[in-house]
Amino acid sequence: MKLESDWVTGFVDGEGCFHVGVNPHGDMRAGFQVLPEFTVVQHERDVQLLHALKEHFGCGVVRRNHGDRMAYRVRGKEHLLRRIVPFFDKHPLKSKKRQDFLKFRRILMMMEAGEHLTETGLAAIREVARQMNRGRLRESPAPPETGEENRAKFLVG
Amino acid sequence: MKLESDWVTGFVDGEGCFHVGVNPHGDMRAGFQVLPEFTVVQHERDVQLLHALKEHFGCGVVRRNHGDRMAYRVRGKEHLLRRIVPFFDKHPLKSKKRQDFLKFRRILMMMEAGEHLTETGLAAIREVARQMNRGRLRESPAPPETGEENRAKFLVG
Repeated sequence: MKLESDWVTGFVDGEGCFHVGVNPHGDMRAGFQVLPEFTVVQHERDVQLLHALKEHFGCGVVRRNHGDRMAYRVRGKEHLLRRIVPFFDKHPLKSKKRQDFLKFRRILMMMEAGEHLTETGLAAIREVARQMNRGRLRESPAPPETGEENRAKFLVG
Repeated sequence: MKLESDWVTGFVDGEGCFHVGVNPHGDMRAGFQVLPEFTVVQHERDVQLLHALKEHFGCGVVRRNHGDRMAYRVRGKEHLLRRIVPFFDKHPLKSKKRQDFLKFRRILMMMEAGEHLTETGLAAIREVARQMNRGRLRESPAPPETGEENRAKFLVG
């Protein structure tokens, strides 16, 4: 299924989520891992839309979220910076979700500059992340991680 | 705010609802009123999108749904048949919500032919309406009606 850019923006205005997790992690230099992710969750009957988004952006994975919900998810700084951010720069979101996107982009830029590896930078990132998704989440953007192996796949830094 | 057609389709694929209520009503010839409505519900922070949809379609109202949720709502056979249906005929939904739209359109055509005023036609409409929105509603498309005055505004037939 071919997706028009404006359709993607409209759909993400409704269903998308830009989220940055900052979680304690012993292995990271600053003691925390920063996990930016872009997610779109749908009922499994519309999983074909999630695959179409994956094809559209040329990155990410489609996985079961929980129960009958499926998620398209992009983690990983490079894909987010090279694919997701430029798209929404060019085709701006119209909802207040754009504010989340702008904070999300700012954190990615800070990570690009290595700021998440210093205590000062990490504190700044946490502050921006804290201001995101205020009361905007209707669905958990990510299932609970199970075990270190699963967690390790998504480490950034 | 000007909305691109593809954006509208994408946003409605995510957030829209096509619903037909069939409710007992003493004043109607067949004893029931048929209430088709197209609804988009948003948190009040994005009410400007609902006003933009109203402007885009040239019909409908923006009202508080419940709590901090606002709704753009189009009721009334004429606006639905002349404005909403032709738009989604021209710019088809990509999600399974399109199946609801097609049933919605079918019921409107049946109403256009006056079938909702006969017992046989009404039974057929109820059967199609029953097959819509199966497990697809995340939010009530309409607040509870309060009193006859409010109900009477939306009578169809």
